[in-house]
Amino acid sequence: MIAVDRIDDLRAHCDAARRDGRRVGLVPTMGYFHEGHRSLMRTAREQTDLVVTTIFVNPLQFGPNEDLDAYPRDLAGDSDAAQGEGVDILFTPSIAEMYPEPTRTTVHVAGLTEGLCGAARPTHFDGVTTVVAKLFAIVGPCTAYFGRKDYQQVAVVSRMVADLDLPVSVVGCPLVREPDGLAMSSRNAYLSSDERWRATGIFQALRDAAEAVERGERDPEALRTGIEHAGTHLGLDLEYVEVRRCTDLSTVTTLAGDLLVAVAARVGGTRLIDNITLQISGSEVTTDLGVITQGSTTEPQRKQSFRRGPQVEHPRVDSNARISLS
Amino acid sequence: MIAVDRIDDLRAHCDAARRDGRRVGLVPTMGYFHEGHRSLMRTAREQTDLVVTTIFVNPLQFGPNEDLDAYPRDLAGDSDAAQGEGVDILFTPSIAEMYPEPTRTTVHVAGLTEGLCGAARPTHFDGVTTVVAKLFAIVGPCTAYFGRKDYQQVAVVSRMVADLDLPVSVVGCPLVREPDGLAMSSRNAYLSSDERWRATGIFQALRDAAEAVERGERDPEALRTGIEHAGTHLGLDLEYVEVRRCTDLSTVTTLAGDLLVAVAARVGGTRLIDNITLQISGSEVTTDLGVITQGSTTEPQRKQSFRRGPQVEHPRVDSNARISLS
Repeated sequence: MIAVDRIDDLRAHCDAARRDGRRVGLVPTMGYFHEGHRSLMRTAREQTDLVVTTIFVNPLQFGPNEDLDAYPRDLAGDSDAAQGEGVDILFTPSIAEMYPEPTRTTVHVAGLTEGLCGAARPTHFDGVTTVVAKLFAIVGPCTAYFGRKDYQQVAVVSRMVADLDLPVSVVGCPLVREPDGLAMSSRNAYLSSDERWRATGIFQALRDAAEAVERGERDPEALRTGIEHAGTHLGLDLEYVEVRRCTDLSTVTTLAGDLLVAVAARVGGTRLIDNITLQISGSEVTTDLGVITQGSTTEPQRKQSFRRGPQVEHPRVDSNARISLS
Repeated sequence: MIAVDRIDDLRAHCDAARRDGRRVGLVPTMGYFHEGHRSLMRTAREQTDLVVTTIFVNPLQFGPNEDLDAYPRDLAGDSDAAQGEGVDILFTPSIAEMYPEPTRTTVHVAGLTEGLCGAARPTHFDGVTTVVAKLFAIVGPCTAYFGRKDYQQVAVVSRMVADLDLPVSVVGCPLVREPDGLAMSSRNAYLSSDERWRATGIFQALRDAAEAVERGERDPEALRTGIEHAGTHLGLDLEYVEVRRCTDLSTVTTLAGDLLVAVAARVGGTRLIDNITLQISGSEVTTDLGVITQGSTTEPQRKQSFRRGPQVEHPRVDSNARISLS
């Protein structure tokens, strides 16, 4: 693995690879790797010839009162992890390298960025699309890999790629969960042990919502309310609970088709997001809760496709907090 | 020359050329070619191996009350002209091809787009940068060629390229003038013969401003006022007269360094723009008035570097309208 911190060096490596007919894969990250990041790198390793992973805590996508300075960093650990996943180039630019002067150029995706996380983080997605456009321009990847935990981000980046005819395929990879169901996030490092326990309630509420749909619930408002009740009971400060169409994140009036159920919540001072997707066709319901890891996340490839059931142990909330829908 | 109207076809041709190590040059236009466009194609032909010229009257860069529908079109004539200049691929997409659905993605360059033409055309440059970003993504040019008549456009596109690390060099080519000094523009086709005569006053006022600077004028406000007086006397409806720094289009308080003197005016219903640049170092002044053609513009390569002087015949305004500065 080569470590690179200059744009020109990264571009030269990637240009040379493309000239040799090698497929370049890009995994853009903010570092502090967990199994979710590693699964992106593994998929890139399987599908492309030159795997570039970038670590850049992008100031542009943080609001003025957000956790830019506190964002966890571990370059040595990340470097070991990337090497372990067969990454070819680890790009770790400074802020001065990425923004030698304040950028005047912004890539904005209207509509998709306005609800969900965009409501509380109004400049966030402009920061994401702008830095991702830069990384695409530098690396010139055939394929770029993003985690579906940031489902809205995948949708926004995909739309940017389509609208601007960017020559890259965007792959949204499965959300990866801790053994107790908590969606993996670098920000989980902020949680106290009590908060860590409470945070699992987010997944539990989503899973219970999926069960309600499987039992026949078709009212999105009832689904939302059930999740809100469960979250509130657990002491979660819910920022939003939303049911949206997967394709364009539009709102729905009935539960049918491919749907996203997405949640943002504060646990103590930490903002966490999570989601599941549902394919609903008549009485048929296929639920995607993501992938749950079992045991230590430092072991290779322990993930498996997760459906609700006995393979995951997680703290249960009491029966009042369980989602009860119709 | 190949005529292409599908994005995928254009991309395939350009990808193949790059794979063969050929340099791709891009000349993005809205068609209705004049000598200015042709000079861009010739420069691209000299500097690159595959010359792509695009004709797309981009709705995104027209305001609601602008001349989108009236914009002059002559695909047969343009095709002949492009072929005559050795263009390899002429890309003429439909609106549906470029925008299969309304774009949600916009590339915005702050600051540079706010004054000059941006003041009267607040959405214009977002339309330009968005479509240029698309064309760059489709064509993947080494070099893209723009005319300096649209000086602000060159500055805005250059800034987008720098901020987004786009792998393309932007070349701003000389403004090209008719034999009487009028800046070439597809919109000159709108002018009646009387308007056509009056329109030459724009150039005359700019040239006289340059003479004033050469005589020692160093007050930008006096320069502006002189141009305004001349233009008003000629019956030009001046939208702006501005003196800006070439590098970042910032305003100036004294005439020193590399400066742009830019004008927008309405002549009848037609909006025209023009500019000159001045390099001022102490008492040394180098003026760039652009390139003036002599005789028919259908003959090859009749351009020459133009300085004020006897080689151009143009109507003179009376002495009251001449710029008189200190």
